[in-house]
Amino acid sequence: MGIPKENWFTLEEYRRRLAAARTKMAHREIDVLLVFGAGNVFYLTGYNSVNSWDFQCCIVPDSGDPILLIFNFELGRFLASSWLSEPALYTAQDDPVASLVNLLDDQNLRNRRLGIEENSPNLGVKNYRRLRQMLDGSQWTDASGLVDGVRLVKSEEEIAYMREAGRLTRLGAEAALAAVAEGVHDHAVASAAYEVMRCNGSDFMCIEPIVAAGYRSGLAHSTVGHIPIEHGDSVFIELGACVRRYTAPIMRTTVVGPAPPERQELTDAAQLAVQTIVETARAGVPTSDVAAAAHQKAIKPIEDRIQFHYNFGYSVGIGFPPDWLEPIHFFIQLHNHAPLQAGMTFHLPFTLRVLGEYGAGTSETILITETGCEVLTQGQADV
Amino acid sequence: MGIPKENWFTLEEYRRRLAAARTKMAHREIDVLLVFGAGNVFYLTGYNSVNSWDFQCCIVPDSGDPILLIFNFELGRFLASSWLSEPALYTAQDDPVASLVNLLDDQNLRNRRLGIEENSPNLGVKNYRRLRQMLDGSQWTDASGLVDGVRLVKSEEEIAYMREAGRLTRLGAEAALAAVAEGVHDHAVASAAYEVMRCNGSDFMCIEPIVAAGYRSGLAHSTVGHIPIEHGDSVFIELGACVRRYTAPIMRTTVVGPAPPERQELTDAAQLAVQTIVETARAGVPTSDVAAAAHQKAIKPIEDRIQFHYNFGYSVGIGFPPDWLEPIHFFIQLHNHAPLQAGMTFHLPFTLRVLGEYGAGTSETILITETGCEVLTQGQADV
Repeated sequence: MGIPKENWFTLEEYRRRLAAARTKMAHREIDVLLVFGAGNVFYLTGYNSVNSWDFQCCIVPDSGDPILLIFNFELGRFLASSWLSEPALYTAQDDPVASLVNLLDDQNLRNRRLGIEENSPNLGVKNYRRLRQMLDGSQWTDASGLVDGVRLVKSEEEIAYMREAGRLTRLGAEAALAAVAEGVHDHAVASAAYEVMRCNGSDFMCIEPIVAAGYRSGLAHSTVGHIPIEHGDSVFIELGACVRRYTAPIMRTTVVGPAPPERQELTDAAQLAVQTIVETARAGVPTSDVAAAAHQKAIKPIEDRIQFHYNFGYSVGIGFPPDWLEPIHFFIQLHNHAPLQAGMTFHLPFTLRVLGEYGAGTSETILITETGCEVLTQGQADV
Repeated sequence: MGIPKENWFTLEEYRRRLAAARTKMAHREIDVLLVFGAGNVFYLTGYNSVNSWDFQCCIVPDSGDPILLIFNFELGRFLASSWLSEPALYTAQDDPVASLVNLLDDQNLRNRRLGIEENSPNLGVKNYRRLRQMLDGSQWTDASGLVDGVRLVKSEEEIAYMREAGRLTRLGAEAALAAVAEGVHDHAVASAAYEVMRCNGSDFMCIEPIVAAGYRSGLAHSTVGHIPIEHGDSVFIELGACVRRYTAPIMRTTVVGPAPPERQELTDAAQLAVQTIVETARAGVPTSDVAAAAHQKAIKPIEDRIQFHYNFGYSVGIGFPPDWLEPIHFFIQLHNHAPLQAGMTFHLPFTLRVLGEYGAGTSETILITETGCEVLTQGQADV
């Protein structure tokens, strides 16, 4: 039909991902992996659509190419984006779970040791129960987190997209900060950031720009309320441009007029926390050590009077709406003692708030390297 | 703390919703309903946050106020948006499922007949399994779709927001169509639509504007590729402004230059299908009759050469990213024989495609009334 291929990654990259997943499958004694999460399906097959909500399953046998089962209406997106030659399709009249079980039967895979990615919103409890029923007698194990574990460490091809996402995010943050002024509406700030990110190359974003002004800066996860910014307001901004589905988020807070000392103190603490992590993190260091350093130096002195979620960082990379956290939820936290690895990428969301009064948020997205870390959201002015 | 209340709905409206849910609970012999879906929690409690992904549960006993369990970082959003006086909170260190079970114990609700909204992405398979384990011995039933069933029929307060959402969506579509021209990039069209919707009053959108030009208009669920629009291109546009979380979507397709007859034929068919539904639908008519009329008149003559998903309409209202379909998935389809009811609202997504070549999409969002239907996305030019 002559549909051009998007070819976002090389075939070698997909082969590498598949081999890494198979190593983990062998380790967990899984012959056939069933992957449901949109991010993981995209990672293995390249298939990429605005529609991340319909039932989809990537069957990964221990040898040969994966088989992707999708809604037939998605055929065009498959042909444009996947490296696989053809999909398996179900129609609006079909039962997708029954289609999956039939496909396993057709391929003689049903009686092998199955690994089911249970913890995926794309599977859901109802489909999970019906799958259990229909696969009654089959041998299966929960394979949640298997592909996510491979995704934690990014390749050079992925890092290149994250660098570009960081650059675009940074442009968006600068546009948002430049738009903030007394009398300007919060929505105009969001719109300025969106336009700059969108028109400079951002793909479909996980979350549109978040802007919260005044007392709303002190309420986590608030966004535009169509209200004018007033003199003395704190304005909290959070955004993430997306390049080939890879997001590198950033937070910034500014005050219209001189910042009162107690608010400047929060901003300073957030910046010190980010800086401490950037100086401490490198491959091989226990994650908890990095969290502890930032906690000790920046958060502890003020923790009795602020709201903080104690996630000093979370893994980012491939993101699909509604959020850009990688589903494995690898956090930089005081009790996560796993060592950092080169190629991991984290958003460091230092959002410190006095509830309902004001808040300060500062963050960067970083890449862990053998010798330290690279700030992917760095601007020229910071270098 | 003096956090202003958003008060998007009257207290009477919430009481009405609660009473309607309790009628269905009694009918299904449920004493205590556990609601997990972000849209349903918002519907019952008003609680509204950018964060729709973390674990949350609204406990609805058969009398007294509901109890909402949320992540403690969300306290500010709760105080700003919910009509309930206080939430139950879990911290990042807590196990949210254990917190829920403890809460049921504290309230002496555990040994009553429980209804669990199983089919919610906010619950998920892992939490579902742990909940089953921890509630071992309790009497429970699947209550998926119970609150969604109440939501199907909109109140006057909801309809007012959907009318406003329709008006903003329409402005966005007009801005997008006005921006389309040879040499303009697809992303500039999306950005024009976003700015107009955002700055005229749209809240946080479920899906940012979708624009697919050229052969990509023939690939369902494609969006911007940062490519210039060429002479002769079809440009497919789909968007939905959001007012107080209520979305009224629209699709339009235009051709740069004269439309070739075979493409005009698709556009005409899509428009005829919408028009047929608008003329046929009213309270009391079997849904399948409406689908059959549109099928017979508009789709059947061309169905052997196009891709169509055979969903002649789907219920819309409260939407959270990643999509704006109401989770009950009440479709206008050939085999859905349920009668239409006054207050139901549907998006009519007539997207007809010749795979990988071109496509035409036309749609409106409608409100079913006793005497016919109202087009919520109508512009002045159409009246």
